[in-house]
Amino acid sequence: MSEPLFGLMMDYPLTVTQIMRHAERVYPDGEVVSVTADNPQHRCTYSDVFRRTRQLANVLKTLGATRGDRIATLAWNDYRHLELYYAIQCSGMVCHTINPRLFPEQVQYIVNHAEDQFIFVDKLIFPLVEKLAATFETVKGIVVMTDEANMPETAVDNVHCYETLLAGADEQFDWPELDEQEACALCYTSGTTGNPKGVLYSHRSTVLHALGANSAEGIGFKNRDTILPVVPMFHVNAWAVPYCALMVGSKLVFPGPKMGDGETLANLMNAESVTIALGVPTVWLGLLNHLQESGKTVESLERTVVGGSACPASIMDAFRTQYGVETIHAWGMTEMSPLGTINNPPRGFEAMSEADQAALRVKQGRPAFGVEMKIVDEDDKELPWDGKAFGRLKVRGPWICSAYYKRDDTDAHDADGWFDTGDVSTMDSHGIMQITDRAKDVIKSGGEWISSIDLENVAMSHPDIAEAAVIGVPHEKWAERPLLIVVNKPGKQLSAADVLSHFEGKIAKWWMPDDVQFVDELPHTATGKISKLHLRQQFADYKLPSSAA
Amino acid sequence: MSEPLFGLMMDYPLTVTQIMRHAERVYPDGEVVSVTADNPQHRCTYSDVFRRTRQLANVLKTLGATRGDRIATLAWNDYRHLELYYAIQCSGMVCHTINPRLFPEQVQYIVNHAEDQFIFVDKLIFPLVEKLAATFETVKGIVVMTDEANMPETAVDNVHCYETLLAGADEQFDWPELDEQEACALCYTSGTTGNPKGVLYSHRSTVLHALGANSAEGIGFKNRDTILPVVPMFHVNAWAVPYCALMVGSKLVFPGPKMGDGETLANLMNAESVTIALGVPTVWLGLLNHLQESGKTVESLERTVVGGSACPASIMDAFRTQYGVETIHAWGMTEMSPLGTINNPPRGFEAMSEADQAALRVKQGRPAFGVEMKIVDEDDKELPWDGKAFGRLKVRGPWICSAYYKRDDTDAHDADGWFDTGDVSTMDSHGIMQITDRAKDVIKSGGEWISSIDLENVAMSHPDIAEAAVIGVPHEKWAERPLLIVVNKPGKQLSAADVLSHFEGKIAKWWMPDDVQFVDELPHTATGKISKLHLRQQFADYKLPSSAA
Repeated sequence: MSEPLFGLMMDYPLTVTQIMRHAERVYPDGEVVSVTADNPQHRCTYSDVFRRTRQLANVLKTLGATRGDRIATLAWNDYRHLELYYAIQCSGMVCHTINPRLFPEQVQYIVNHAEDQFIFVDKLIFPLVEKLAATFETVKGIVVMTDEANMPETAVDNVHCYETLLAGADEQFDWPELDEQEACALCYTSGTTGNPKGVLYSHRSTVLHALGANSAEGIGFKNRDTILPVVPMFHVNAWAVPYCALMVGSKLVFPGPKMGDGETLANLMNAESVTIALGVPTVWLGLLNHLQESGKTVESLERTVVGGSACPASIMDAFRTQYGVETIHAWGMTEMSPLGTINNPPRGFEAMSEADQAALRVKQGRPAFGVEMKIVDEDDKELPWDGKAFGRLKVRGPWICSAYYKRDDTDAHDADGWFDTGDVSTMDSHGIMQITDRAKDVIKSGGEWISSIDLENVAMSHPDIAEAAVIGVPHEKWAERPLLIVVNKPGKQLSAADVLSHFEGKIAKWWMPDDVQFVDELPHTATGKISKLHLRQQFADYKLPSSAA
Repeated sequence: MSEPLFGLMMDYPLTVTQIMRHAERVYPDGEVVSVTADNPQHRCTYSDVFRRTRQLANVLKTLGATRGDRIATLAWNDYRHLELYYAIQCSGMVCHTINPRLFPEQVQYIVNHAEDQFIFVDKLIFPLVEKLAATFETVKGIVVMTDEANMPETAVDNVHCYETLLAGADEQFDWPELDEQEACALCYTSGTTGNPKGVLYSHRSTVLHALGANSAEGIGFKNRDTILPVVPMFHVNAWAVPYCALMVGSKLVFPGPKMGDGETLANLMNAESVTIALGVPTVWLGLLNHLQESGKTVESLERTVVGGSACPASIMDAFRTQYGVETIHAWGMTEMSPLGTINNPPRGFEAMSEADQAALRVKQGRPAFGVEMKIVDEDDKELPWDGKAFGRLKVRGPWICSAYYKRDDTDAHDADGWFDTGDVSTMDSHGIMQITDRAKDVIKSGGEWISSIDLENVAMSHPDIAEAAVIGVPHEKWAERPLLIVVNKPGKQLSAADVLSHFEGKIAKWWMPDDVQFVDELPHTATGKISKLHLRQQFADYKLPSSAA
C-alpha cells in the first residue's frame, strides 16, 4: 500500500485551558499563599483562583479585549498574576509578561512593539507605568492589581482597580475552543545588545514544555510538594511553575515583591514548609547569607532548582552539607520556554567519589526529552560528545521558538531548523552538557578558546572574593587575553598576586589571566546576571601590561 | 482585531522516532537485560538495540513491507521485541502486538482483520502460528525471533530466521519524516463478548501518553531506576514502559517467557537490582507466594505499579509491611493507551491514620494530567464528585481512542467526544477515583446498584478464601441478587454460613449475597482476569434459594 495510515485517537488540542480544567476539577483545594503589596500573607485555594479567573475573563471581555490581543503584565509573583496568566491565555489572548527591572525605554519599546492593549500592573510598579503612559501607542487601559483602598492617586486616564473590576464580574465564563497552535504568552529577552526580542509561545509548546518539565527526570513536581518560585513570573513564565504546579496540585508559595530578600524567603520556607524552591544563583546566595547570619535552618526544603547562570560550587556545597538541601542545576533560555537541560543525579551517582560528584554537580545536565542538541565548530560541523570538544550549542524541539515576534533581522535559526543558543558548551558521552561560555564572552587567544566562566569559577572559589568576572581584552600578539575583575569580600584586600597564585595548578598555564583589576561592584543586568557588555565598556580604555597594543 | 494569533514555535512533530533519537544520543550505554527462549541472560545496551533496530528496518524494507503496513508480533518481553517496536514504528508502519494467550480463532480473526503483512513470532509461540498459518489471508512471511541454531523445523512457507536476516542487513537507515497523526501501534482488546476490537495508536498519542506516564506524579521513571515490566509487551504497549524507560535512560529487565513465574521474577529482581516492577495482581500474588515459601527478600525493589484489575489489600499490605515495597494502584484500558488514573500518595498522606491510608490505597487514584473524567447516571447526567455517587465513567483526552479500527458498530463514543469506559466508579472531592464495578457486572437489585467488586474484596479479606467472584442472578422480586462463588484455600473447607458471617458489619444489609457456591477454580480471561462471562454461563441454570424465579 505504501500510504500512511492515521491513528484513531481523539483530536484533543493541547491548551492551557486543559491545565486549568484539570487543576480545578482534580485539585480544587490546592493551596496558594502570596505575599502582596497590600497583604503580607494572602491565602486562597485553586478553586478561588479559578472562580476569580472566570471573573477576570469577563472583565477582559467587558474592557473590550479580544482574541489574539496582547495583554501586558508588570507584576511580581502572586495569586493575581496567576489569575492573569489563566484568564488571558484561556481567553485566546496573549499574556505578555514584562520585566519591571528593565530600563524604562526598554519597557516603552516592548509595550509598543507588542502593541499591548491593556496593562495590568502591581501597585509598587505603577509609578514606572505612570511615567511611561503617555508614550504607549496602543494601550487602552491600565489596571492596578490592588483593591480600592490601596489605589494610587493618578492623573493618567483609563486607570482601573483590579478588585473593583472583579467584584462586579460574573463568576461564569464560557471558555473558547482554542487551536493548540494559538499564541498564549509573549516574553521579550533581556538581550544585552540591540532591542529586546519577543518570543511568542503557543498553547501547544506551553503544555508540552510543562509535561517535559514535570517529568520525574525533569523538575518533577509532586502533589505533596510545596513550591516557592523565586524565579519571577515575568521571566519565561517562571520556568513553567504556574503550569507544572497546577497540573499536579502542588501548594504554591509566592514571595510577591520580596524575591531578593533572604529573610522573607527563609521565613516563608519555614512557615509554609516549602519543599522545593526555584531561582537564580544570586537569590540562593542571599538566602545562604541570611541563614548563616541568623542561625536559622530550612528543615522542610529538599531541593532548589537553579538556573539563569551557573551556580558556584561553594553555594551548592554550603546548602548540601550545612542545610541538607540538594541544588539541581538547570539550563535554558527564553527562546526555549525555557527548559533545555537539568542535572538530576544520574544512575550510579551515589557510587561516585566525592570529587566526581562535585565535578558533575556544576555541569548543566542532560537534555530533557523533547530537546535535541548538537555542538558545532565555526564551520557548523558537528563536534563529538566526548566531554572535551566545545563548540556552539544548537537546539531543536517542540518548545523552542522558530522566529522572534515581528523580527526577521536575526540569524539565530539555521536552514535545518536549529536554533543557535549563543552558548558554547561540551557534551559528554553520557549526554551531559556543560556550558563553557557565551559565544561572545569566550576569549579567543591565539586561535584557541579560553572559557571566561571556568576562570570565574576558580576565582569564586577563593574565600575572600565576593564576585568575579573575566573579559577578553585586545592583545597585540594573542589577539585577546583574559582580564580578571574582582570584588573583594567586605574587609578583605587581596593583591593581584594573591589572586593569581590561587589559579596555579587549577587551570592550563596559558589560561592564566594577564591581569587582575579590583572594583567595588560589578554591573548587573535586569535579570541579575553580570553584564559583560557594561564591563567591556567600563574597561574599554584599559591596556594589558603584557601587551603594547 | 479579534483574530487568533499563532505562536512562533518550532513545528516539531511528536513521534516515536524522537524517543529513539533521544535515547540513543543521550543514553547510549543504557542497559537492557533479557530472558529469552535461547538465552537465560542476554545483556545489551541501548546503543546495541538501536544499531539492530536500523538493521531490522532494512530487513522490513527488503521483505517488502511499506508505510502504513501492519506488522504483527506474537512475543514475550525481550530486547528483540523492543527492536521490533522501534523498527516498525519509526519506519512508519504499525506494530500490531498480539496476545498469544488468546484463543487460536481470536488470533486468526485479529491477523486477518488487521490485514497483517508479516508476523514476528517467538520460538515458543511459533507452534500456534504454524497451526494457523494456512488461515492467514494477508500474511506474506513469518519471522521466528531466534538464531539459526534454534530455528524450528516447519513445513510452512516463507518462514525466516530473525538473526539470519539481521546479520545480512546494513547498520545505516534513513528514518522517514513522519506526521505525528500517523498510526504507530495497534492492539486489540480482549473483550469478553464479540470479536476483539482494535485500538490504533498514533505517534502523537503515544508520545503524549509517555510524557504523561513519566510525570513525577504519574509512574515517573528516573534514570537511576531499574525497571522490570511484567506487564506483557503484547498488552497495551506494556503500559508504555518501552517508551518511558527509554526517554530517561532507565535500565530495563525483561522476563521473556517467564512472566508468571515468581521464582524467576524474584531472582531477576535480586540479580539486577530492580527498583520498580509493573504488572497485574496475579503476578504479585505469585511473587509473594514464592517469597514467603523461599524466605527470599527483594531489597532493591521500591515500588510495584499494579493495574489490570484491583489489587487485593492483603497483597499490598504484605509487600509493604514484610518487604518494604509500596504498591501503587493504576487504572486504565487498551482504549486509553492505557493510563487513566494512578494512586500515588497525595499531600498529607503521611499524616493520615493507618485506616485512612489503607482505605485510600485500594482506590484507583487521580486522573493523570491529560485525562478528563466524568461520571454519569443512566440518563447521561453528570454525578457529583462526592465519593458516594457512582455511575458510568466517561473519559476524554489526547491518548484516548476516537473509534475502533475498521468498526463502526460500537456505541462506546458519544456525540460530545467522550468515551464510555464501561466501568462504574465514584469520584471524590480530591479527584480520587474508585472503580465500583464493570457496568455489565454491577448487580441491579430493586433499581439500586450493588458493586460485585466491593463484595469480592470483602470475601478476599477472609484468610481461608483463595479467590472469590460475585455475579448477579435473576430474582423474581429484586430483578437480580448477588451470588458469591468461592475457591477455598488448600486444605480449608468453609461453609456458606462461615463466609456470610464474615460479611456482617462490613456491608449494607441489602448487599448481603443471597447464596455462596464453592468451586475448585474460577475461569480466567487471557489477561488473567476472572471471566464473569464464563462464570455466568457456568451458573446459567443456577436458581437462588431465595427466589422462586
